[in-house]
Amino acid sequence: MDPDGVAKAFVDHYYRTFDSNRAGLVGLYQEGSMLSFEGEKFMGAAAIAAKLTSLPFDKCLHKVVTVDCQPAGPTGGVLVFVSGSLQAGEGEHQIKFSQMFHLMPVGPGNFYVQNDMFRLNYG
Amino acid sequence: MDPDGVAKAFVDHYYRTFDSNRAGLVGLYQEGSMLSFEGEKFMGAAAIAAKLTSLPFDKCLHKVVTVDCQPAGPTGGVLVFVSGSLQAGEGEHQIKFSQMFHLMPVGPGNFYVQNDMFRLNYG
Repeated sequence: MDPDGVAKAFVDHYYRTFDSNRAGLVGLYQEGSMLSFEGEKFMGAAAIAAKLTSLPFDKCLHKVVTVDCQPAGPTGGVLVFVSGSLQAGEGEHQIKFSQMFHLMPVGPGNFYVQNDMFRLNYG
Repeated sequence: MDPDGVAKAFVDHYYRTFDSNRAGLVGLYQEGSMLSFEGEKFMGAAAIAAKLTSLPFDKCLHKVVTVDCQPAGPTGGVLVFVSGSLQAGEGEHQIKFSQMFHLMPVGPGNFYVQNDMFRLNYG
């Protein structure tokens, strides 16, 4: 497995889906998946998707600036650490964000999101 | 195990050690530990400590703003996601940073840093 390739493909897919069809993100999470969104905690694909689809804006555009990744250890997982900016709604300001994902393998070349932590970086 | 307690104790210890005795951080890493520092990769406690102690400033002051954490899955690991600001040298500007750690257990209540990714958030 090439962690850099996994991370790049995941990040492209995740933010493209977020910006074009947010409900489609549900397929990336499983029952035991966890999301911390600005400090609020959610567990399980359904609760996570409900949170993401209820965010108070229709259009969103993410610009990814940095992607770092490392193998997570003996489990075959991959840690992905992203920074960038997002524009939530047309004409809105860009806001910086940081996000980390822990991807776990579910088969050859297939991963789900076990952990997801998101923070806006105001200022 | 209480992940929030582990994360809080670790974050307090890590940044206090970084700001007062950077060489002391070596004890938090092991042979297989990984650091991505502004995109540059280091592996093993010795290489990581060499990088951290060679940073071009003597005094550093971290201010932690947010700490999120989640259990990393079946391994007993803990993921810690930090945002804050740092001042590298007296009279220098505060710079925002984000950092994530993957802590792995090495005994009851004892953890080492398996993964560490650090980014400055300019702007």
